[in-house]
Amino acid sequence: MPPKPGAARRRVVIVGAGFGGLAAARGLRDADVDVTLVDRHNHHLFQPLLYQVGAGALSASDCAAPIRPSLKRSSNTTVLMAEVVEVDAESRQLALGDGERLDYDSLIVACGAQTSYFGHDEWQDVTCGLKTLADASDLCKRFYGAFEEAERASDATERESWLTFVVVGGGPTGVEIAGELAITAHAMRRQFRRIDTSRARIILLDAGDRLVSAFSEKLSRKVADQLAELGVTVRERARATAIDAGGVTIEADGTSERIDTRTVIWAAGVHVVPLAETLARTTGAETDRGGRLQLNPDLTVPGHPEISVVGDAASVSGSDGKPLPGLATVAIQQAHHVVKGIREGEAGASAPFRYFDKGALAVVGRGKAVGAFRGVELSGRPAFLTYLLVHLYYLGGQTGRRVAVLIKWIGARFGERQSALIEGELASVERAGI
Amino acid sequence: MPPKPGAARRRVVIVGAGFGGLAAARGLRDADVDVTLVDRHNHHLFQPLLYQVGAGALSASDCAAPIRPSLKRSSNTTVLMAEVVEVDAESRQLALGDGERLDYDSLIVACGAQTSYFGHDEWQDVTCGLKTLADASDLCKRFYGAFEEAERASDATERESWLTFVVVGGGPTGVEIAGELAITAHAMRRQFRRIDTSRARIILLDAGDRLVSAFSEKLSRKVADQLAELGVTVRERARATAIDAGGVTIEADGTSERIDTRTVIWAAGVHVVPLAETLARTTGAETDRGGRLQLNPDLTVPGHPEISVVGDAASVSGSDGKPLPGLATVAIQQAHHVVKGIREGEAGASAPFRYFDKGALAVVGRGKAVGAFRGVELSGRPAFLTYLLVHLYYLGGQTGRRVAVLIKWIGARFGERQSALIEGELASVERAGI
Repeated sequence: MPPKPGAARRRVVIVGAGFGGLAAARGLRDADVDVTLVDRHNHHLFQPLLYQVGAGALSASDCAAPIRPSLKRSSNTTVLMAEVVEVDAESRQLALGDGERLDYDSLIVACGAQTSYFGHDEWQDVTCGLKTLADASDLCKRFYGAFEEAERASDATERESWLTFVVVGGGPTGVEIAGELAITAHAMRRQFRRIDTSRARIILLDAGDRLVSAFSEKLSRKVADQLAELGVTVRERARATAIDAGGVTIEADGTSERIDTRTVIWAAGVHVVPLAETLARTTGAETDRGGRLQLNPDLTVPGHPEISVVGDAASVSGSDGKPLPGLATVAIQQAHHVVKGIREGEAGASAPFRYFDKGALAVVGRGKAVGAFRGVELSGRPAFLTYLLVHLYYLGGQTGRRVAVLIKWIGARFGERQSALIEGELASVERAGI
Repeated sequence: MPPKPGAARRRVVIVGAGFGGLAAARGLRDADVDVTLVDRHNHHLFQPLLYQVGAGALSASDCAAPIRPSLKRSSNTTVLMAEVVEVDAESRQLALGDGERLDYDSLIVACGAQTSYFGHDEWQDVTCGLKTLADASDLCKRFYGAFEEAERASDATERESWLTFVVVGGGPTGVEIAGELAITAHAMRRQFRRIDTSRARIILLDAGDRLVSAFSEKLSRKVADQLAELGVTVRERARATAIDAGGVTIEADGTSERIDTRTVIWAAGVHVVPLAETLARTTGAETDRGGRLQLNPDLTVPGHPEISVVGDAASVSGSDGKPLPGLATVAIQQAHHVVKGIREGEAGASAPFRYFDKGALAVVGRGKAVGAFRGVELSGRPAFLTYLLVHLYYLGGQTGRRVAVLIKWIGARFGERQSALIEGELASVERAGI
């Protein structure tokens, strides 16, 4: 049902206000279409800095920007805070959580991914994820709460287990949070009287042969060295086989081992959100192992030129034939590609999408990072400075906010570290059944 | 049991890390005593700015400072995050929530006050308080969530009730939050497509004859005028007689009236925390209407020269015979008075406490405030500027943090207002049974 000539303006619905969805909404600002952006939250989350919230160096509002203010000048755009529960591809309608239905002529699905426990959903209750603001706040409470518990523990074994932190997953997120927690623990060493926080053990488990495997072997080695300097224990080829409230059982080099810990951070994998699974079922689109939809080269769903998928829910290959990584820059470029098609009067893009690789960065800790940019590899301070500038550039919000975050961030990096706030008797720790 | 000569150092236990407790701990930093500071939270809350968190202009970490970093150089001080459940005045011991017992030679009770519903505890579930960080976060979510609900409401009556906000209590807190919410609603007017946020009704109920009755009649009138300019509807001599999830019933000038609203903010009264009640029972101390302990002129509990009470749990009269107000400056001066006695080798102070009145301030909104300083009355911009400087001066934390808060604050005041973050499907609204 293409829009009839002379009919009402085309209706574009965007699901998700992450990097992809927000870029699409912004790109359609002055286009001759009516845009509706739907998200479960009222804010855009700046995922790359989320681990800083987990470590208490930034507060939630520093790494999330409310959606409405950033789109207030887009008079063609309505923002709805709602959950999309179903896509009816035949009648071109979305069903929202409260029963409201939204008609669309073009649909941009930018719904992202969520933490995956590889079939061990019971681990969700005994670990901290790092995908949502609630995850990060929870980790923050539990991390600082662990030192409070250790300070009050009467038993040495119990104290040790509160002072042991296990990070599962050696990708960029796992590396970043492990480094940040080690720095934070060290920075707090004068704040306690009965424990030495700098003796806290941060253990990073990676099931593969090397950390941050998207980078070269040389950079992986650099990352491992930088983590070791910060006091992080890196265990490669170590797989978690059991996790409970008292510890982790790992299998490494054929032998099984138990680590007593009260805090396990899960940074091992992601899977698409249920909506993407629903969309795949409805349209018959094929999916990859992470549930991501196999798309036409123009990012539309096979058989549905009016439905485009961008970001973490899209399975798209780069020029080297390898799947594109789940990076903000991929989602944004894909959104711009789809927007271009819609602005030209089509239901979606029709030209094939080509990714321009801007490179990748991972930070390890204060002044430590690695980066790869079109064949050029960086590490140490130059990589860290690049990281800082790139992230401030992409951080949403007006200038005043960026400056405030920068000051706080630099303050945190140079020793003026705050502990984070804990409300009420370590409630989140208790909630997890520990 | 006074400490024996040559025995271990005297043990001073401070309960509560509010303005009084923290001032006491800091004052004892290099004294020849062992100090233990016990608080349920790991942070000091800067109460005077809490309403800004409620309105989303500041984040939680902007108006709360972790306790440990600020005392890390006090090597004689141990901080424990725990709840004090009992004072055993005979054996000079405190019982903590997990069964641990703390011996003391001197006890400083600085446990503060909590919201009082004047016997209507069921109102707690259908209103937002403004005493704790959790209160403020909850108000923030519900305030911004109300506009999200209004934007999606299909029914005009329902929409109106989401756009109506009732503040109960015309003291400084009620005045401050009413003004701030009115400014915020107005600032969001371009962010929604289906509703006009500047038409939101903010209604301030005061049971007495005039707002902020601690100030002069002239200043009360100024406050009412300033609120009216911001669009707040002030209802004096109006008492809430029933509150439920759908609205408030008020009695004004002998007639009963119903206001449909989904958001009621309770700023009407405080009562001491249960620990202060326990202490009064154990020691036989008399209490006033708010549960505050009647003390000796030196701030000790009658019959217990080793137990001092400071701040909101202490009932003390000023030189004019009227009870001292629940202000930070009162608690701090009282703490310094007790510390002086302890530093001189006594179990508490023995000289009578005298309050030096530094004046009082209340802010109404952007550039609007009133203040009274030893007979000098201020209003408008001069009062507001004074308010700004005084609060930044007292705001805890290092310089970088203050500058960051200042930038954010000024940004918020001059129109760069962010909406606040809402996590997950307006959960707090649902939790309240609406």
